[in-house]
Amino acid sequence: MTDMAQQTQTAPRAPTRVRAYAAQDATSPVAPFEIERRAPGHGDVQIEILYSGVCHSDIHQARSEWGPSLYPIVPGHEIVGRVTAVGEGVEGFKVGDLAGVGCMVDSCQHCDSCAEGLEQYCENGNTQTYNGRERESRAITFGGYSTSIVVRQEFVLHVPESLDLKAVAPLLCAGITMYSPLAHWKIGAGHKVAIVGMGGLGHMGIKLAVALGADVTMFTTSQNKADDATRLGAHHVIISTDAAAMKAARSSFDFILSTVPTTHDLNPYLRTLKRDGQLVIVGAIDPVGVHGGQLIAFRRNVAGSNIGGIAETQEMLDFCAQHGIVSEVEMIRMQDINAAYERMLKNDVKYRFVIDMASLKEGEQAAD
Amino acid sequence: MTDMAQQTQTAPRAPTRVRAYAAQDATSPVAPFEIERRAPGHGDVQIEILYSGVCHSDIHQARSEWGPSLYPIVPGHEIVGRVTAVGEGVEGFKVGDLAGVGCMVDSCQHCDSCAEGLEQYCENGNTQTYNGRERESRAITFGGYSTSIVVRQEFVLHVPESLDLKAVAPLLCAGITMYSPLAHWKIGAGHKVAIVGMGGLGHMGIKLAVALGADVTMFTTSQNKADDATRLGAHHVIISTDAAAMKAARSSFDFILSTVPTTHDLNPYLRTLKRDGQLVIVGAIDPVGVHGGQLIAFRRNVAGSNIGGIAETQEMLDFCAQHGIVSEVEMIRMQDINAAYERMLKNDVKYRFVIDMASLKEGEQAAD
Repeated sequence: MTDMAQQTQTAPRAPTRVRAYAAQDATSPVAPFEIERRAPGHGDVQIEILYSGVCHSDIHQARSEWGPSLYPIVPGHEIVGRVTAVGEGVEGFKVGDLAGVGCMVDSCQHCDSCAEGLEQYCENGNTQTYNGRERESRAITFGGYSTSIVVRQEFVLHVPESLDLKAVAPLLCAGITMYSPLAHWKIGAGHKVAIVGMGGLGHMGIKLAVALGADVTMFTTSQNKADDATRLGAHHVIISTDAAAMKAARSSFDFILSTVPTTHDLNPYLRTLKRDGQLVIVGAIDPVGVHGGQLIAFRRNVAGSNIGGIAETQEMLDFCAQHGIVSEVEMIRMQDINAAYERMLKNDVKYRFVIDMASLKEGEQAAD
Repeated sequence: MTDMAQQTQTAPRAPTRVRAYAAQDATSPVAPFEIERRAPGHGDVQIEILYSGVCHSDIHQARSEWGPSLYPIVPGHEIVGRVTAVGEGVEGFKVGDLAGVGCMVDSCQHCDSCAEGLEQYCENGNTQTYNGRERESRAITFGGYSTSIVVRQEFVLHVPESLDLKAVAPLLCAGITMYSPLAHWKIGAGHKVAIVGMGGLGHMGIKLAVALGADVTMFTTSQNKADDATRLGAHHVIISTDAAAMKAARSSFDFILSTVPTTHDLNPYLRTLKRDGQLVIVGAIDPVGVHGGQLIAFRRNVAGSNIGGIAETQEMLDFCAQHGIVSEVEMIRMQDINAAYERMLKNDVKYRFVIDMASLKEGEQAAD
């Protein structure tokens, strides 16, 4: 690492070709591919990727399930690495620093949302880390399933040295997606919070809400995961298929975060909200079942929330460092990605796959 | 009136039988009926009913469309009249005062919601003005389609003498149902507000939101009603079937009130909300169409709101007096109620029917 950092302290002037894994179309597996990364220009940070988390949205987009994807697609938006070069005008990052990249690599930087640090709601559309297009060149953006990435400094996060790096990667999407609504709705001590779904997002929801001081309940369908929820700090667990338990929980919660990534019926959870309670969905972009009467009867609210802004993501990373919070991860090699996708589709991961990017570099020295 | 008030200044000690109109079952028309009103007990106010507004929920409940109704049912929860007697311990009302009664006549008075003046969300269930049961006696409550009513003082409103009384009646349901969410979400100058549906509620929404200082848009399907919306103060009108106009309105509004009383698709309206915008439904107790993506993309909110608390209803009446706001009404005789229902079902009313209760008293002197 140190050797490599030394070698690249002067920013390269030409694009570099790097190893990656890409899907070439909606039905092909993710497979070895070579991509070009731009030379770090003014304000750019070049990062050697050490770890890349695997998000459910990687599968959705690799398979073109969220509207037409841009192919070839190199997924990955939970990136942790080390700075290998910086362009002119970069302040705050130097070669050798830890760095993180999440779901966005750019935004217009001048609309009201960007001005408020809410780049995820950029009114001109943010630039996704992958399956997007660079604002100037219109080139397809390529994500974290690769050995290196170049990102403008405004979208690069400082990663605390004190945390377990491989388990930090999922904070860049799963972590911030949970933290942002908890912070926006000012959740803390005295609040009764429930998290729906014990997965990559949900298990982070427990850790963050507990650290914020809330009384935390996990709604899950699985007794096996219920035990894990308790181990990770949840104060209560409700098996959502248990009708008596669901009835007993009516009008209990101030705040519910639903991490369910697909169409689902919100009504059983709405009934467990207090008057003026707030339910927030973060995963389901399809129709969700809502009975008007459940809202009207107790002035209940349903909202959506999309990842988080850059400043808020930094705040979340710092909060995690302060509280020793990282994700529960299962490490995989880049070569195992397609098998990992199949396991994720069966909810068979505890609780986030993270790719050790060293696996993609194996034999690189020999080949180069 | 004065004569009658004189005669009844001492509270009667026995129940009185009064004329009313009732439905005897879900398929029968509303027809003449005689009901008993209790003698005003401690804290009770007896009111001679002058005007009774006709709400869409009267039809729903007369026809048992909102779960099983309690028969015989005497609808009417937009009541304006004059005090004819008061029980012991009544403060703030005296014989001859104007008085109003809305959708509730009682609540537990000790839960958190009641303590906050939000009796409409009483955790032990409020007592509806009709189609409910008295908390002690469990007798069926009878509403405003009658010549007199007895209500505990905490649920009786002061009606400003300065307003046109017959046009005040609809404020007790339609008015407060619009005012409460506007007040709760602190709508005022600088806010862009849209009202969906130009009916009994929607036309009040325009008047109230304009008086609160907001920039107000009416969404309606009818060009004819669009002109009325403008006449009543709406700054803009969008014909919701005009796809180009709906597209042009995307991300425009801070706050939308949907008065549509049945299942409807919220997504076309959600798209017109800004980031962090709030849509509130007040009428539809059935499923409403919500795409998660519409919420997540801009952290949009959907909530429900149910009438308003008693203190807030008084605040609304005082606000209306200050701004000279009343409902647009079409007067009917009690005998015309079934024809009025049929017209309401065709949206053929501008914009609220109000029953002149003198019609029910005709011939009373002779008969008694």
